[in-house]
Amino acid sequence: MTTGFERGAAFVDGRFVPVDEARVPITDVGFSRSDVTYDVVGVWDGAFFRLDDHLARFERSCAGLRLRLPFSRAETTEILMRLVRLSGLRESYVDVICTRGVPRDGSRDPRTFENRFYAYAIPYVWILRPEDAETGMDAVIAATVRRIPASSVDPTVKNFHWGDLTKGLYEAYDRGARYPILLDHDGYVTEGSGYNVFAMVGGELLTPEAGALEGITRRTVLELAAEEGIRARSAAISEQAFRGATELFATSTAGGVMPITSLDGEPVGAGLPGQVTSLLRERYWQAHKDPRYLTPVDYGPAPAH
Amino acid sequence: MTTGFERGAAFVDGRFVPVDEARVPITDVGFSRSDVTYDVVGVWDGAFFRLDDHLARFERSCAGLRLRLPFSRAETTEILMRLVRLSGLRESYVDVICTRGVPRDGSRDPRTFENRFYAYAIPYVWILRPEDAETGMDAVIAATVRRIPASSVDPTVKNFHWGDLTKGLYEAYDRGARYPILLDHDGYVTEGSGYNVFAMVGGELLTPEAGALEGITRRTVLELAAEEGIRARSAAISEQAFRGATELFATSTAGGVMPITSLDGEPVGAGLPGQVTSLLRERYWQAHKDPRYLTPVDYGPAPAH
Repeated sequence: MTTGFERGAAFVDGRFVPVDEARVPITDVGFSRSDVTYDVVGVWDGAFFRLDDHLARFERSCAGLRLRLPFSRAETTEILMRLVRLSGLRESYVDVICTRGVPRDGSRDPRTFENRFYAYAIPYVWILRPEDAETGMDAVIAATVRRIPASSVDPTVKNFHWGDLTKGLYEAYDRGARYPILLDHDGYVTEGSGYNVFAMVGGELLTPEAGALEGITRRTVLELAAEEGIRARSAAISEQAFRGATELFATSTAGGVMPITSLDGEPVGAGLPGQVTSLLRERYWQAHKDPRYLTPVDYGPAPAH
Repeated sequence: MTTGFERGAAFVDGRFVPVDEARVPITDVGFSRSDVTYDVVGVWDGAFFRLDDHLARFERSCAGLRLRLPFSRAETTEILMRLVRLSGLRESYVDVICTRGVPRDGSRDPRTFENRFYAYAIPYVWILRPEDAETGMDAVIAATVRRIPASSVDPTVKNFHWGDLTKGLYEAYDRGARYPILLDHDGYVTEGSGYNVFAMVGGELLTPEAGALEGITRRTVLELAAEEGIRARSAAISEQAFRGATELFATSTAGGVMPITSLDGEPVGAGLPGQVTSLLRERYWQAHKDPRYLTPVDYGPAPAH
């Protein structure tokens, strides 16, 4: 039996629809001015991972842009639950979005727009496929573009301003690699196209302290490192320090802990996933069985819609 | 008789639809990564103004982002003509958009996406309504945000990365004004939320030479100034020079030449539109009767659709 939701389910204008039918009005300034924020939660083995942490960040992002969410946290949770249930997915990538909305009668005053909520659940997205985890990511430090500075667009408010990251992605492909990492305008490491980065430098695990999203996976890794007795902290990381790291990895809800095994064509360490990286990757996936992080999905019979 | 197109007409997925029905797939990275470019052409008194200049810039913007337009310039012109004809509008704001498109089967490689073309024609948009032209714009130099630098996102490729401009817009409202102007990270004037700016400084008309869109209205003003024997050029304009200007104005397809009569609550010059501003505004609208700039719309009987 097909339900029409196999490729994913979306919530748009108060209705649950197949994700392929989910559309945004062309006049929503969430599109035409990228006046929007979002968050992504993973569902793994039938449970949301750190759902409340993601929704708390989403609420902070909305507040940061002065967007009013039309739903409470409990209502949002209900919507997301129903999306995953409709999709039938045990592993899912669940996106929540709030846009400024559609201008009324030609008004240019965004304070008057009715903010809009969208959500969808699709099959889990891998930035690095698990079968490629041992091979790892081939990364480059982008030479043609710098990360948008926080003084222009706050990177801790999750946003769709990806022009710099997309340019970096094209540069990576042009150079025979796939994963760009961007520096800020002072030459410090920030993040990649959808992932935070970590570096083992002088026996310490470092992640950029500024200029990047404060990722939930990043936070999880910092917590797990503390539990494992690994010295880890956020810090400014120069390009030189990053290039000299003995291990590198990336983190994202879309793939977890992902080893970076080459940088600008040179092997990182021995060119294989490092010890600390592998340990944290294992612990990250173990944490997906830890009840303190989980919100199980109720897959009971799908209601009529 | 109503046609359904009174509020505007759009072209989406090869079909002509009322603008209120025009939608972008939620998974189009034109939305979810703002991986998109666009252009806006004005229709005035039944004719496109500088259509080929706008379409040439649009093609350059697409090339800059490595987007492949699915239509030739002649085909695009035909689509835009039909949109205006369907809308029945004599004065219209016509938007052409090209997005990277929808990822195929979870691929993250944007080179594999089928690029998408959208267009719509809606009633002419005024950043400053003509009845307010004598009152002019109340502007502020944004103190809380700086323009995204060209080293991150090229401002000459027309884009939807408006997070900085929207933040400036909110700051303007908070300060009792409506029109933000952003500085770059070195303190030089760039542009506002949808408009270029000009300043009369030391008897010369200046417009920022970098960090801003190379607007077609801006270019028209530079050409008209030359014809009028007004010394005009693009240059780096410091905040101090801008504040000391004897006249200020903004330019946009959405409103033409618009006097700025106050800056941070202080009057500009005498607090009224300046002489050069008023002359160029008059000449700008006169140019809308000049055949060398015009492409008349054929409003003949609307075809079935």
